[in-house]
Amino acid sequence: MKLVVINPNSTRSMTDKITDAARAVASPGTVVEGRTADGAPASIEGHFDEVMCAHHLLREVQRARDEAADAVVVACFDDPAIGACREVMDGPVLGICEAGVKAAGMIATSFSVVTTLPRSVPVIEDLVRRYGMADRCRRVRAAAIPVLALEQPGSDARARIRAEILRAIEEDRCEAVVLGCAGMADLTEWLTAECGIPVIDGVTAATTFAEALVRAGLKTSKIGAYARPIQK
Amino acid sequence: MKLVVINPNSTRSMTDKITDAARAVASPGTVVEGRTADGAPASIEGHFDEVMCAHHLLREVQRARDEAADAVVVACFDDPAIGACREVMDGPVLGICEAGVKAAGMIATSFSVVTTLPRSVPVIEDLVRRYGMADRCRRVRAAAIPVLALEQPGSDARARIRAEILRAIEEDRCEAVVLGCAGMADLTEWLTAECGIPVIDGVTAATTFAEALVRAGLKTSKIGAYARPIQK
Amino acid sequence: MKLVVINPNSTRSMTDKITDAARAVASPGTVVEGRTADGAPASIEGHFDEVMCAHHLLREVQRARDEAADAVVVACFDDPAIGACREVMDGPVLGICEAGVKAAGMIATSFSVVTTLPRSVPVIEDLVRRYGMADRCRRVRAAAIPVLALEQPGSDARARIRAEILRAIEEDRCEAVVLGCAGMADLTEWLTAECGIPVIDGVTAATTFAEALVRAGLKTSKIGAYARPIQK
Amino acid sequence: MKLVVINPNSTRSMTDKITDAARAVASPGTVVEGRTADGAPASIEGHFDEVMCAHHLLREVQRARDEAADAVVVACFDDPAIGACREVMDGPVLGICEAGVKAAGMIATSFSVVTTLPRSVPVIEDLVRRYGMADRCRRVRAAAIPVLALEQPGSDARARIRAEILRAIEEDRCEAVVLGCAGMADLTEWLTAECGIPVIDGVTAATTFAEALVRAGLKTSKIGAYARPIQK
Amino acid sequence: MKLVVINPNSTRSMTDKITDAARAVASPGTVVEGRTADGAPASIEGHFDEVMCAHHLLREVQRARDEAADAVVVACFDDPAIGACREVMDGPVLGICEAGVKAAGMIATSFSVVTTLPRSVPVIEDLVRRYGMADRCRRVRAAAIPVLALEQPGSDARARIRAEILRAIEEDRCEAVVLGCAGMADLTEWLTAECGIPVIDGVTAATTFAEALVRAGLKTSKIGAYARPIQK
Amino acid sequence: MKLVVINPNSTRSMTDKITDAARAVASPGTVVEGRTADGAPASIEGHFDEVMCAHHLLREVQRARDEAADAVVVACFDDPAIGACREVMDGPVLGICEAGVKAAGMIATSFSVVTTLPRSVPVIEDLVRRYGMADRCRRVRAAAIPVLALEQPGSDARARIRAEILRAIEEDRCEAVVLGCAGMADLTEWLTAECGIPVIDGVTAATTFAEALVRAGLKTSKIGAYARPIQK
Repeated sequence: MKLVVINPNSTRSMTDKITDAARAVASPGTVVEGRTADGAPASIEGHFDEVMCAHHLLREVQRARDEAADAVVVACFDDPAIGACREVMDGPVLGICEAGVKAAGMIATSFSVVTTLPRSVPVIEDLVRRYGMADRCRRVRAAAIPVLALEQPGSDARARIRAEILRAIEEDRCEAVVLGCAGMADLTEWLTAECGIPVIDGVTAATTFAEALVRAGLKTSKIGAYARPIQK
Repeated sequence: MKLVVINPNSTRSMTDKITDAARAVASPGTVVEGRTADGAPASIEGHFDEVMCAHHLLREVQRARDEAADAVVVACFDDPAIGACREVMDGPVLGICEAGVKAAGMIATSFSVVTTLPRSVPVIEDLVRRYGMADRCRRVRAAAIPVLALEQPGSDARARIRAEILRAIEEDRCEAVVLGCAGMADLTEWLTAECGIPVIDGVTAATTFAEALVRAGLKTSKIGAYARPIQK
Repeated sequence: MKLVVINPNSTRSMTDKITDAARAVASPGTVVEGRTADGAPASIEGHFDEVMCAHHLLREVQRARDEAADAVVVACFDDPAIGACREVMDGPVLGICEAGVKAAGMIATSFSVVTTLPRSVPVIEDLVRRYGMADRCRRVRAAAIPVLALEQPGSDARARIRAEILRAIEEDRCEAVVLGCAGMADLTEWLTAECGIPVIDGVTAATTFAEALVRAGLKTSKIGAYARPIQK
Repeated sequence: MKLVVINPNSTRSMTDKITDAARAVASPGTVVEGRTADGAPASIEGHFDEVMCAHHLLREVQRARDEAADAVVVACFDDPAIGACREVMDGPVLGICEAGVKAAGMIATSFSVVTTLPRSVPVIEDLVRRYGMADRCRRVRAAAIPVLALEQPGSDARARIRAEILRAIEEDRCEAVVLGCAGMADLTEWLTAECGIPVIDGVTAATTFAEALVRAGLKTSKIGAYARPIQK
Repeated sequence: MKLVVINPNSTRSMTDKITDAARAVASPGTVVEGRTADGAPASIEGHFDEVMCAHHLLREVQRARDEAADAVVVACFDDPAIGACREVMDGPVLGICEAGVKAAGMIATSFSVVTTLPRSVPVIEDLVRRYGMADRCRRVRAAAIPVLALEQPGSDARARIRAEILRAIEEDRCEAVVLGCAGMADLTEWLTAECGIPVIDGVTAATTFAEALVRAGLKTSKIGAYARPIQK
Repeated sequence: MKLVVINPNSTRSMTDKITDAARAVASPGTVVEGRTADGAPASIEGHFDEVMCAHHLLREVQRARDEAADAVVVACFDDPAIGACREVMDGPVLGICEAGVKAAGMIATSFSVVTTLPRSVPVIEDLVRRYGMADRCRRVRAAAIPVLALEQPGSDARARIRAEILRAIEEDRCEAVVLGCAGMADLTEWLTAECGIPVIDGVTAATTFAEALVRAGLKTSKIGAYARPIQK
């Protein structure tokens, strides 16, 4: 199986981290290819960045389809342009927010999300509602760190995320935490050990769920909203 | 007051029609400027087209802001990239779906939407839910016509839309109909007369609502998700 | 255009304030007439007061219709008897809660409401749900002041409202605030300046939205629940 | 126990019918008093009628409280002015819509409502949502009969209601039917026998539920929205 | 009328307490029989206990039906196996959670639930959603006491429950409290007096509501999901 | 990885079919063990059967845990006793309804469910709501066949299911169909080919999703409602 994991921003160190996370959990027979949406913003922090990444992301999805990839993972927690990606691909396309929150619902009765900047909180709240998980989501929280701080070795990003998760456990009475940014993928194990609660990374969840859909023989439905784009 | 109405596709005859519709209802003191998202697809029929128009649309929003426009109307019923437009502008930005369905809720206890192609139905259903109008929306219907048929004088588009509205009245027991495509803006009066029910055109509603917000002294909130994009 | 703004309580100083607020934002060509529901309670603080004002309010709506008013604004945040007013009028009828919360959704991803007495909080929560804005409303708050304190020059009402708005910003993480009483209409500018967040007054919003509906050619649907009352 | 059942319209034959229905199910120790809202419209068919009955209804609730009634039933399916009635009373106040749809949820997984005129359908849909029973309600239907036809011996009202219930069973796949008008109270047994499905009359349900609340020692909460009206 | 109240756990002192509570509110003509689900766990604290009680509970429901009981009350706040009980019985079956939260909605605009252990909170939150009362429920709280502490004379259970109710009033701004465990049935009067707010016990509410349904002539619908189990 | 797939009814031919379906999609390294809930009813058709299977099912989950199974799939579309199974297991436990409907949301904007008997429709509607997929589910349909007809070679079950799927496509405008019974697992490929739409079998989806959760390192949260049962 060939799985293409696309980082929809243009920061290659994030692509590497995401690809490593995906490979670490993929099945032995799965080839994981990491791609960067060159030309996109360096990070996605709000609606504007989401738009400015989207057509670069679509170009990579088209390439994945042309290379006969079986499935695509879009590795940004805002799940940018997922509907458009599904129109382009035939195999499944998974965003890491959808995968993360749906996985949370399978192992816990409630969860909170911990993301980077406060401005992303309403974006994620909307996604959680859209995926039907609002009743299970206690709160979407921000650790108040820029996305790229996660790429800087000396930053206090890790500590702030851990602190926010501990606050979530205490204040939200949640049973699991979903990490609200692809750039946190390398912290999952450490945070799980530190916080004593299932910590769910969307990249990991989307990778294994995408494999699952392929293995189950499922492809994107082509008889409605996800039909191939109409040629103009 | 200066109001910029942006057609997010690249078909100039649609821009003209939309601009005319906006000017027909704007207050005497309002200058309406119509703009076309050159470079965008010729019509927006699905998620892919929405993405392919979005950055061209944003360029026009930035230009509107630089020209000190008081408000912006985005004249496509999929309300593409509205969040990003709001980040860019300081004055209000209104999509025609949001304006249309909220107006419907002010004059009727229920409504149906009549759009062009069936593939747009789930997109609009999601928007209606997002704007909180799902309880009021009896059904989103498609007249099964391509968007650009609305630009072709000899097409049967008008007749099909009328027929679909009549079906909506009969089958959905709705009290109003919202037209689900900016390209229908010139049919509003005729359809209202033919069908004996309030027929709401989003372009018209968004134009007058945008004026209303400006007159009420309201601007886009800049302390949260609609703050200006972060410079990278 | 002739717009009738009805104060459904019997306190004439509130009518004056409300009428001033409406005139301050109405278009040059709009004639705003303020009316008082003589015979109604001096203020509306709960369900009982709402009932005791309603038939007096309807009398004023009938008069507005007989005088060929184009639209009616009902200037109490409980939106009393709005359905009945719509049955009586042919032009649009807008309540200030509906206008305020729908406007909030156009300029912010979330808002809180600040009203007068705690007993009105559940009433407003129900309205917010009914208008489909519950997902956007962080919290309905009360400043714990009687409505008529807003009419007393020396009261601490202004200070308490400001304090409650500042608490809303801090605790609710809201991006805008809607003022939950018509009697606060004269405080909007001051509160906006003091609090650094869009502060939305329903009287203002309903006035400009009512103009917008008229300009867009929309009238109350007469084929369903808002048909003229049946003569007995 | 003293239970006052108020007919909020002014048609005394309906009061008699409603009182009979209540007495037929009340416990041996319960005294049921029927009251008419003299001065109200002859029937309640829409929002306007609801307003025009409400203050007359409240007068009867005040009288019931002064006479030390233990509970009040408001016998109109629009549940007019229930909040205001609860402010006035100390004991429980029940509307027949709330009682009917909540009872339905206790004996069936889904139900439909059959009311009189189509214009009442959206009013009832709103109530069903407000009472939290929307997921259980398959559809609100109208038999297209004026309320007062139920008082005319020779009318085809009975036959039309039966036909509409049979359509509900067939088309809605509902497991129970709630009668959507107090004037149908005398048809319950006959309709249950004819249609082979639990047919729930709100007058009956509200009467026995009101007794139940009194017996359980429950009174209307007076620490919030249902506190006594504020004296002006 | 014969009413069977079943304690679905095997602790006989709880059965006695529950039976006493039911008898204290039942009508003079009602015979209340208390039954214990012998073989079930000693208390129901979570999903596992719920399963382990369910078939013992059903055995008692079958016995009640064979003895021509008119209605059954299942006296555990998790409302275990209610659907199955309804399949078995012909008369109504009521769980104490459904009765308690629906009663709360009849006398208050909002309520909180106070239960025993934190692990039961998500179970009750799900039930509250299922019964349509989520908009009315401010919060489900746990007093952090094991169920059986309620059976131990010297425990601090009463004090902890009172403290939690007082916190609910203060923090949740609720207008009523529903006791979230059948074992609290004997504390209702004391807690009501201590806390100055309607305190609703589900056993009491379910007993009088079950009587109400019987008196209203309502039985469980047998044409759908609650039809008698299919013989295998 | 060791995955235990439990058939919660006692029909061994169904266990074989389910186990085959699971093995057909499991990864090479996964050992799939099929188990039968001996002592349970021969099929699960309603709430009663669900209760009567649950404790037998739990016994098999305990055995799976004792044998160090990594995950458990419960292969009945009513997702019986899932919460209790999660309390007992440490690894993930997946029901086939949850897996099926969540998978549907990843490849289509809407779906319908096709199950066996009409009496199961409300049960599944409740599950769909609980999993947050109600907005995506067009309708739950029954092919009107007993579960065990799926085990009889000569029955018309296959034809009826195909016919119902074709009706779903036509009438519901759904983009995918979820098979609402574990006993349909062997029909998936044939139905997909016949109907030209993604047909989702829950057994298949739950098997690959369970593998996915294990591979992603996720286990059932043990700090809340899914903590191990309390020893009595």
